[in-house]
Amino acid sequence: MDSAVCLHVAHAEGFAIHAISFRYGQRHALEIDAARRVSGSLPGVEWMLVDVPLDRFGGSALTDRDLRPSREGGGREIPLTYVPARNTVFLSLALAWAETLAARDLFIGVNAVDYSGYPDCRPEYIAAFEVLANLATRAGVTGSSFRIRAPLQHLSKAQIILKGRELGVDFALTRSCYDPDLQDRACGVCDACRLRLAGFAAAGLVDPISYVDH
Amino acid sequence: MDSAVCLHVAHAEGFAIHAISFRYGQRHALEIDAARRVSGSLPGVEWMLVDVPLDRFGGSALTDRDLRPSREGGGREIPLTYVPARNTVFLSLALAWAETLAARDLFIGVNAVDYSGYPDCRPEYIAAFEVLANLATRAGVTGSSFRIRAPLQHLSKAQIILKGRELGVDFALTRSCYDPDLQDRACGVCDACRLRLAGFAAAGLVDPISYVDH
Repeated sequence: MDSAVCLHVAHAEGFAIHAISFRYGQRHALEIDAARRVSGSLPGVEWMLVDVPLDRFGGSALTDRDLRPSREGGGREIPLTYVPARNTVFLSLALAWAETLAARDLFIGVNAVDYSGYPDCRPEYIAAFEVLANLATRAGVTGSSFRIRAPLQHLSKAQIILKGRELGVDFALTRSCYDPDLQDRACGVCDACRLRLAGFAAAGLVDPISYVDH
Repeated sequence: MDSAVCLHVAHAEGFAIHAISFRYGQRHALEIDAARRVSGSLPGVEWMLVDVPLDRFGGSALTDRDLRPSREGGGREIPLTYVPARNTVFLSLALAWAETLAARDLFIGVNAVDYSGYPDCRPEYIAAFEVLANLATRAGVTGSSFRIRAPLQHLSKAQIILKGRELGVDFALTRSCYDPDLQDRACGVCDACRLRLAGFAAAGLVDPISYVDH
């Protein structure tokens, strides 16, 4: 959902869009089909799917069958669903593509409000990656700088949903649920579902996707 | 060769070593077999090979059949063999593994002297990655910091070779040549071969590998 709104923000700003999704061993790989549908819903978007096997390293409930992401509660400082260095790997690969395209604006749908437990969603992390990107590449030598854009960074989930509605995002195409086994419905109880449902409730809107009846 | 010496430096410092190599679509994939042999030559080294398809993005003579890396000469500021964002992708994946291992020292064999044309070999780049690593991960929250170690950074190729000899590196196991078609010999004329041969000459040593007779 955040990625979909982020894509529409970039589109509304008039960018020619090259979208990138990652098959990284996530158990909830259905999000890849959703990303393809969302990208296909906007004219002129080039979409690339890249394989990067973060499940080889383990350490996250999102890639490891023995760790369960559902209903973990709020006690822990960093959620079990944190995937080590995931956003750094994703941004690095996006940077590689951007450099070959001569693109300079990298958009990422991170959000520091609802997911404050993820270190790689913090504003200071995004700022540090921008510094790195400009040292890592030809940009650092030629002086044409990369910008890492995180337009949802300071929005609540409800604000993200309202912005998405304003920009014409079809939320029925999106998927948030971490449950790998549900095809056409969402579980409604994992962290991602609970944040999504609370966001729609706070925005005063109805989530168009289907949930398992509990 | 640089990676082999870097590995031996870490080993000599007493680290338990988890080595990582990347199959990134490099045409000279024979270096992967060499990495495996070099890692296997030290007791207790765990070696992992990770696939990451940088050739999907193009833009480098090392991954693209239509660009030739050989004998490009010294005119250009950044060599054709530069692979966009490669070291950032490699370090990011190493960081992901390190975080799950609770390792804190990441070694990389970059060198700012002979390869000064590569932006992601510069000391300021390495320093920026260290800052990023500590914001990107649990380390940033718990205060147990990552260190990015680049022990060859300020050495000439000759000094790297002399350090390798001192540490017992078997240079016959290593491979530098960019030519993808030569199995048991090196071409002797690509940038990597020329730097290697000049390094051995400056060190007053004989390179134990075989070269094509020109």
